[in-house]
Amino acid sequence: MEYVIAERMRHMKPSAIREIFKYSANPEYIPFSAGNPAPEAFPCREMAEISAKIFAENPIGALQYNFTEGYPALRDAVRQDLRDRLHIGKEMDDVLITSGAQQVMDLAAKVLCNEGDVILCEAPSFIGSLNTFRSYRVRLRGIPMQSDGMDLAALEQALREEPDARCIYTIPNFQNPSGITMSLEKRKALYALAKQYGVLILEDNPYGDLRVSGQDLPCIKSFDEEGLVIYAGSFSKVISPGLRVGYACAPKEILQKMVVGKQGQDVHTNILAQMLCHAFLTEYDYTGHLARLREIYRQKSALILGKIEEHLVPQGVTYAPVEGGLFVWCTLPEGIDMLEFCRKAVEKKVCVVPGSAFLTDESLPCASFRMNFSTPTDEQIVLGTERLGQLAAEMRAQ
Amino acid sequence: MEYVIAERMRHMKPSAIREIFKYSANPEYIPFSAGNPAPEAFPCREMAEISAKIFAENPIGALQYNFTEGYPALRDAVRQDLRDRLHIGKEMDDVLITSGAQQVMDLAAKVLCNEGDVILCEAPSFIGSLNTFRSYRVRLRGIPMQSDGMDLAALEQALREEPDARCIYTIPNFQNPSGITMSLEKRKALYALAKQYGVLILEDNPYGDLRVSGQDLPCIKSFDEEGLVIYAGSFSKVISPGLRVGYACAPKEILQKMVVGKQGQDVHTNILAQMLCHAFLTEYDYTGHLARLREIYRQKSALILGKIEEHLVPQGVTYAPVEGGLFVWCTLPEGIDMLEFCRKAVEKKVCVVPGSAFLTDESLPCASFRMNFSTPTDEQIVLGTERLGQLAAEMRAQ
Repeated sequence: MEYVIAERMRHMKPSAIREIFKYSANPEYIPFSAGNPAPEAFPCREMAEISAKIFAENPIGALQYNFTEGYPALRDAVRQDLRDRLHIGKEMDDVLITSGAQQVMDLAAKVLCNEGDVILCEAPSFIGSLNTFRSYRVRLRGIPMQSDGMDLAALEQALREEPDARCIYTIPNFQNPSGITMSLEKRKALYALAKQYGVLILEDNPYGDLRVSGQDLPCIKSFDEEGLVIYAGSFSKVISPGLRVGYACAPKEILQKMVVGKQGQDVHTNILAQMLCHAFLTEYDYTGHLARLREIYRQKSALILGKIEEHLVPQGVTYAPVEGGLFVWCTLPEGIDMLEFCRKAVEKKVCVVPGSAFLTDESLPCASFRMNFSTPTDEQIVLGTERLGQLAAEMRAQ
Repeated sequence: MEYVIAERMRHMKPSAIREIFKYSANPEYIPFSAGNPAPEAFPCREMAEISAKIFAENPIGALQYNFTEGYPALRDAVRQDLRDRLHIGKEMDDVLITSGAQQVMDLAAKVLCNEGDVILCEAPSFIGSLNTFRSYRVRLRGIPMQSDGMDLAALEQALREEPDARCIYTIPNFQNPSGITMSLEKRKALYALAKQYGVLILEDNPYGDLRVSGQDLPCIKSFDEEGLVIYAGSFSKVISPGLRVGYACAPKEILQKMVVGKQGQDVHTNILAQMLCHAFLTEYDYTGHLARLREIYRQKSALILGKIEEHLVPQGVTYAPVEGGLFVWCTLPEGIDMLEFCRKAVEKKVCVVPGSAFLTDESLPCASFRMNFSTPTDEQIVLGTERLGQLAAEMRAQ
């Protein structure tokens, strides 16, 4: 049987990261390619306690159908947390619990974009989101990144040239993959541009709680008086990615359409997982937990940066500063082909992600690759950076 | 801000059932409108045991990222179960774990249908699936139901007239909402028609294990030599709907595209939930559990049918025979307006679902409504049917 695949999916390939994930699940490979939280970052004891309590006190509640909008107590807790800690969520807004923040990207594209419409996104940006947008036949226009966030002159030009632009997709904190954090000035200017051109902002903030140095900056959503921002949050990096619980805070009118889309995708997000997140958020020392995570990643990021300095910088590799998140964005010197470097790294059993995977047009030239420091053990970080340094030296010598 | 909503979602409304669910969550209302498993059907003790074991032995495995295709051990167990009990899954096929069978419908439409393509579906059919198809701007053509399944003459005519038909959507066992089970002859003839016209079959089988009388019939997928059938199964009705675990068994080529779609929607299905289902399937007496469920629903269906005979049949209401599943499809006599009957029932704090909600064109005339017997308690079944009988008598007298 020759199958006719719909246009939207015909040319779609599995995400390079999810595919490399299969390698990195093999313990022989050093997994700089993943985005998994560090094993020591999981609140295992607390999850075990909460789970036992749920099954003792309310098993049917955990196993029965529930509301598409989310487990009511978790929605309340998220509303409260967003208000208290991030100062976001106005009268016009509401909260939808999703199956990971990935589903916010999917539902936003589904609700906002006709086929052929445009999403303006940071270049490079998170491949998982870009692929979701592509699956709705959205055209992506990349806006180059500067050290303090999107190039706003390029953004404004794009807004002028693209009447079908429906939203601006941004990860303002410790962007994936570049690690860049958007400055306060740019956050405000970006909001003003969105307002001026009547375009929405999709603000994706999975790493915001993982700052390891510097000062927290306000979310773009906190400026939102006009109902222009769809904010996506996630428990994946701060509680557990396996539970698949994220959320959107967005204007009710848009959220209602996202709820309809979610009904069709998965009816609602796993209730047991929502109850686990709810209890952890409200009955435990969540602030203390976040502080502990930051300490773990402060140490791991310091380790990898030190080792990059030791093994890669002498070979001409540069890297972007890391104030938080889980990634280091490294750039190879001229004379080393990036794709070949990534391929040869796999031969040395070290997995990194080619930077081109994060571009709106993968065929554009790119000398960068992404390294993750949360997944590998400290020993793997030491060994892996050493191997990458050797590889760079070998390739330079050729 | 005036929002521009994408065409595909502009006219979409929340599912009537999910909206009525909000009423039926109110304990003052008798919930004939839901599709929730009976509280006594949940394996609460077993889930508590398994969950404790998972958090004691492999907490990080339950909380960490995993494969989009599904938790490997659960995929294996599902492959085995499908082979052993249903004789489905050939060399060309594979299994994808999804966030409920609802996600199979979404991903199948996403992979198979361009905007404007056609899905042929039973009329009436499950509103959740119809809405998902609509959200991809698929045109639905309803094929009338007969007492032994789709009217195959009408199906063949539709296949001749619709060159853009991409698949035939069917729930062959205890169809939702009609309760009808497709005969063996029709299953074979439907497969032959699909083969002749080169159209795929989307076989949705959430209730197959809930037969309360008569003999099990083979799935359409069990005839599939050509790779024409996407089979959707679910743990929602046999373990827990709150966990949101379903699966597809389909030709690998289609499944690979569904995996790409799933990466964009939710990366993977909640791992803890997949581990719970896996352990329950492989370490407990699953066959015995299913037998226990059938006994629960045998009793509940006998109760409701007896009470319908007592209170509704004397008012001219007819109903379709029930061999399994969770629903009774009732039809009002001439002279009683169905929508008004459903509205007045809510005033009497009894929720049923208007049959028109299940039509491809909701404005078509419809005298039927759907009653569920798994959600209400026995007392509610007695009281609710009595109230509906009184209502029918009042409306006939007018």
